[in-house]
Amino acid sequence: MSERIWTAALAIIGDEILSGRTQDKNIAQLALWLNLQGIRLREVRVVADEMEAIGAAVTALAHDNDYLFTTGGIGPTHDDITVDAIAAALGVPVIVHSGARAILEDYYVSRGGLTEARLRMARTPEGASLIVNERSGAPGIRIGNIFILAGVPHIAAAMLDSLTGKLEGGRPVVSATIGCWVQESEIADLLGETEKSHEGCQIGSYPFFRDGRTGANFVIRSIDEAKLTACTADLTAALVALGYAPVAGGI
Amino acid sequence: MSERIWTAALAIIGDEILSGRTQDKNIAQLALWLNLQGIRLREVRVVADEMEAIGAAVTALAHDNDYLFTTGGIGPTHDDITVDAIAAALGVPVIVHSGARAILEDYYVSRGGLTEARLRMARTPEGASLIVNERSGAPGIRIGNIFILAGVPHIAAAMLDSLTGKLEGGRPVVSATIGCWVQESEIADLLGETEKSHEGCQIGSYPFFRDGRTGANFVIRSIDEAKLTACTADLTAALVALGYAPVAGGI
Repeated sequence: MSERIWTAALAIIGDEILSGRTQDKNIAQLALWLNLQGIRLREVRVVADEMEAIGAAVTALAHDNDYLFTTGGIGPTHDDITVDAIAAALGVPVIVHSGARAILEDYYVSRGGLTEARLRMARTPEGASLIVNERSGAPGIRIGNIFILAGVPHIAAAMLDSLTGKLEGGRPVVSATIGCWVQESEIADLLGETEKSHEGCQIGSYPFFRDGRTGANFVIRSIDEAKLTACTADLTAALVALGYAPVAGGI
Repeated sequence: MSERIWTAALAIIGDEILSGRTQDKNIAQLALWLNLQGIRLREVRVVADEMEAIGAAVTALAHDNDYLFTTGGIGPTHDDITVDAIAAALGVPVIVHSGARAILEDYYVSRGGLTEARLRMARTPEGASLIVNERSGAPGIRIGNIFILAGVPHIAAAMLDSLTGKLEGGRPVVSATIGCWVQESEIADLLGETEKSHEGCQIGSYPFFRDGRTGANFVIRSIDEAKLTACTADLTAALVALGYAPVAGGI
């Protein structure tokens, strides 16, 4: 009986990422958070701030995964078109969400009032609910299995905080790392054979070059703690037997 | 007459990115390099180390763009399946490339010799050519409009170095940045109207919160230097007229 794997995708809406201006931080942040929820990040797409590109990515990724997260494009300016693009992709109108409007009215009471531009941040696809944002005024948006988050990483993080523990998932992936001063090509067969003989475990090999020496970290992943432990022990013993000095936890 | 825009996509093959273990650096690096070649990065997908996921992304992105770059999955270990996945997607066999084999034989002559595992790095889809890698032994691979690069950022950079100036492109995008201590929502209309009245320019708005104050950088992009200058001047003048003190170059 195979265990259900819950999956998520991320659509990053961001000309600033595609131009190289901004270094993305949302992939790693979301990946780590998802794993704690027992959900696996399966695909990421970065698309331009264009209606069609956003719509195509959202449609495909929401269909193929249990959850889809988007980041970016929900501010008050003309280049913030995520809500419009997702509503269009879903075939629903954009409305001013009364709850979001109330949040923004309250937030801007001491900040110059709710202008027409700021009111843009209360627009949602019809049928959406809100994702609380304790960090700044404008909330995130949930519609169906789509979670629309801010692009600024610390605001996206605040929105994820308010979703913690609320999305159904499976067992989180657990992992162990073994570091070794070895060229991965020297032990490639061992890695492949070890993975093959430990069903339910994946072994990734991540070479590095540091202090003039070549090494690699081997990351073993599984959703089964016992299998992880067994695979890690076997790989460690095999490396020792070959005369290497593996370092638990990685180098 | 509209100018031809040359586009590229990036497929990142990497469980390590999707697990959150590794912070991606290849998107920004490739984006900046591409712009210098007059090529625009239009979409990025991060997919798992799985034949089908890689194949689907490669097929779609190579079709929709002038160029497709991939990073990751070309090392000597069992989890390095990029070549196999791309060959399968293209419907061609995997061969041992004689040129790549010669490079590896030479590289490993003082490093323990060319083992079976290392020889995996000489495998290419049939019909491929090589991309010189001055940093480490194994070359990158070009087949059709697909460029297969290493995942380790400094090795990917070395492969890009050897492609510099060799891919046809158009005019690079030029950009200017204006910083302002203003909430973007206060001048959202101005940004939208300025963009609308300057065809061929895009204005992005990137808010930040720093030293207890709210500000934003506005990035104007165009492939036309004169249009960029005019748009930047207009936006600057309009901000000054509203009583703000815009900072050329950004804050």
